[in-house]
Amino acid sequence: MSVTGPPGFVASAAAGGIKAGGELDLALVATEDARAVPAAAVFTSNQVQAAPVQVSRAHLARSGGHAAAVLLTSGNANAATGDDGRRAAAALCAGVAEGVGCRPDEVLLCQTGLIGIPFPTEVALGGLTPLCAELDPGAGGAARAARAIMTTDTEPKVALVRRHGFSVGGMAKGAAMLAPDMATMLAALTTDAHAEPAALHTALRQAVADTFNTMSVDECTSTNDTVVVLASGRAGPVAAGVLTEALREACGILAEAMVADAEGATKVARIRVQGARDDHDAHRAARRVAASLLVKCSLNGADPYWGRVVSELGASGAVIDPDRISVSYGAVEVCRYGVGVAHDEAAVAAHMRGDRVRITCDLGIGAGQGEVLTTDLGYGYIDENRGTS
Amino acid sequence: MSVTGPPGFVASAAAGGIKAGGELDLALVATEDARAVPAAAVFTSNQVQAAPVQVSRAHLARSGGHAAAVLLTSGNANAATGDDGRRAAAALCAGVAEGVGCRPDEVLLCQTGLIGIPFPTEVALGGLTPLCAELDPGAGGAARAARAIMTTDTEPKVALVRRHGFSVGGMAKGAAMLAPDMATMLAALTTDAHAEPAALHTALRQAVADTFNTMSVDECTSTNDTVVVLASGRAGPVAAGVLTEALREACGILAEAMVADAEGATKVARIRVQGARDDHDAHRAARRVAASLLVKCSLNGADPYWGRVVSELGASGAVIDPDRISVSYGAVEVCRYGVGVAHDEAAVAAHMRGDRVRITCDLGIGAGQGEVLTTDLGYGYIDENRGTS
Repeated sequence: MSVTGPPGFVASAAAGGIKAGGELDLALVATEDARAVPAAAVFTSNQVQAAPVQVSRAHLARSGGHAAAVLLTSGNANAATGDDGRRAAAALCAGVAEGVGCRPDEVLLCQTGLIGIPFPTEVALGGLTPLCAELDPGAGGAARAARAIMTTDTEPKVALVRRHGFSVGGMAKGAAMLAPDMATMLAALTTDAHAEPAALHTALRQAVADTFNTMSVDECTSTNDTVVVLASGRAGPVAAGVLTEALREACGILAEAMVADAEGATKVARIRVQGARDDHDAHRAARRVAASLLVKCSLNGADPYWGRVVSELGASGAVIDPDRISVSYGAVEVCRYGVGVAHDEAAVAAHMRGDRVRITCDLGIGAGQGEVLTTDLGYGYIDENRGTS
Repeated sequence: MSVTGPPGFVASAAAGGIKAGGELDLALVATEDARAVPAAAVFTSNQVQAAPVQVSRAHLARSGGHAAAVLLTSGNANAATGDDGRRAAAALCAGVAEGVGCRPDEVLLCQTGLIGIPFPTEVALGGLTPLCAELDPGAGGAARAARAIMTTDTEPKVALVRRHGFSVGGMAKGAAMLAPDMATMLAALTTDAHAEPAALHTALRQAVADTFNTMSVDECTSTNDTVVVLASGRAGPVAAGVLTEALREACGILAEAMVADAEGATKVARIRVQGARDDHDAHRAARRVAASLLVKCSLNGADPYWGRVVSELGASGAVIDPDRISVSYGAVEVCRYGVGVAHDEAAVAAHMRGDRVRITCDLGIGAGQGEVLTTDLGYGYIDENRGTS
């Protein structure tokens, strides 16, 4: 059900001609009655912000944090496209507003695809009529919408989290340029909980920080990253902490699905750092290990080369004492207090051959802890990214 | 001639049994008369510092910036080896001191290889006798020494810079873990210029900042990076600027050779950022582009995807205005003021197919400029690094 799981939402998809092959490339999520409801978004930290990011920011500011619809397009990022790109984004929002019956500034826009290619506005506008006509409160529209936002993703990514009295649904895309601070990833979430725009924004930011912002595939931060949430309010108010927790769970499901489907990845690794001076240091150190090309190549080869892990901890900028670092692969400690220790090599080898690897680093200094999800680096990533055609 | 080019130095190499296959793995550079001369070094910024780094730092402090010999070993980094590693490093220095006839704290030590493996001290000590016996002021010893420090390097890296009245010689190794702030790289330089230790250190730091610290292969910073220089003084004093310039040229030759020989690389790219707010911002932006996995994959595929370059500039943290960025491949501008421009696609394609690529980014804001050398990312890097055996 994903985005139409929570009552009050409809979804649809269409082939708008942005992708050359005629695949689905337009997705729409809207409120059932086209009424604007509280909405919030978290955008890329990249200073080069695509036209849809600029337009969505402006719309949320103008509407005071409300939206009736989210249009998502794939195949062209509409980034580095200048004034023409901004005009295209405005035209898409106006087209959706006309189709569903709301104001243009009540439409948010998310786009993903190649950067720097002029956006085919006229072609895409033609796809909005069937898109708006087919809005569906059932599972079918949501499933097609989740497919329409895919680029190099191999499968759609959806989530539905049910809580006592309300639920959170979501869909996302993302397969490369995945890094903390998000990256070429789009996610649209819905909930029937009632929340004021400011509270919704706070809850979303917290959920994103704990999930999407702890992924590291290639440390690239795109021009288009956006996570949006719309709250229909049909279930009435929900305690802030409870809503945040449900959003976090939905985002966590989507983030794990993204990392598992990362371009060319053969395994997912969870890098945990504990015993750090504080949580900030722990995250910093975990991120450095997770981003290391040498560590990621070792993962690809199932090689438990802990020396590289220790080296990256030392280069991370986190406070460390080389003689207090311990490292484990799975449940097996391979380095204690900075030097190698005898261990069950067969158990480590078996763990490394699996598609879920856990590396735990204990800095032995304090109580700070943090985790980052990463992938291995193999031929597949290069194959996906060495050409645009 | 490399390190024995400047008068006053001798060099040799031996197979010390550290590398399993019996290859050369010990190299020695010493003053001809075993007299300690002014010496300086720049070490890794990694907080996990290998035993040889700790020992060399201590020796330079104790001798007041003087050394008579530099021992370089390959095959085992003697890093993350604890007290045993420090004892091994001290024993190697003592062995060289006895062999050449100087004090142990007048010996500097550089080691490279795998991290976290106990160092085979007894075996290596046995190799010091032939090593010290074969010290040679000619080209033969220097050539063998340059080979002995290689790990995954495919060829030795040497430099000899002649100036009016003095010269600078050098040798280096390094093929991965190459990043600004150096990384798994060792370089030993010699000069017959006279310079006090403090002035020599200043000159070396400046030369390293402009050369080794502008390389980016994988942004990994190792536990062992060291650049050392010994100044025999036979040529008498030289103006500080002139010495710095000669050191910079020698380091530049070695740095270019390292990047060109980087693990699995098929091409070298020079990323230039100009028009930045200041030089610091320019370097920061160039480094981000140079380190980008997506840009490096594009280089591997000879794909001039400037959208990725612009995205990385935006994510670099440097001050930018998206609408003022221009990007050129070779001499051909492909993006002007943030959007694509019609250009000679055949000329760009030809440039991208070559083994030397230039990407120039003009931020259009100020006068700051900087360059970083990088490589493409292809199968070769993964093949080299997915296993340690």
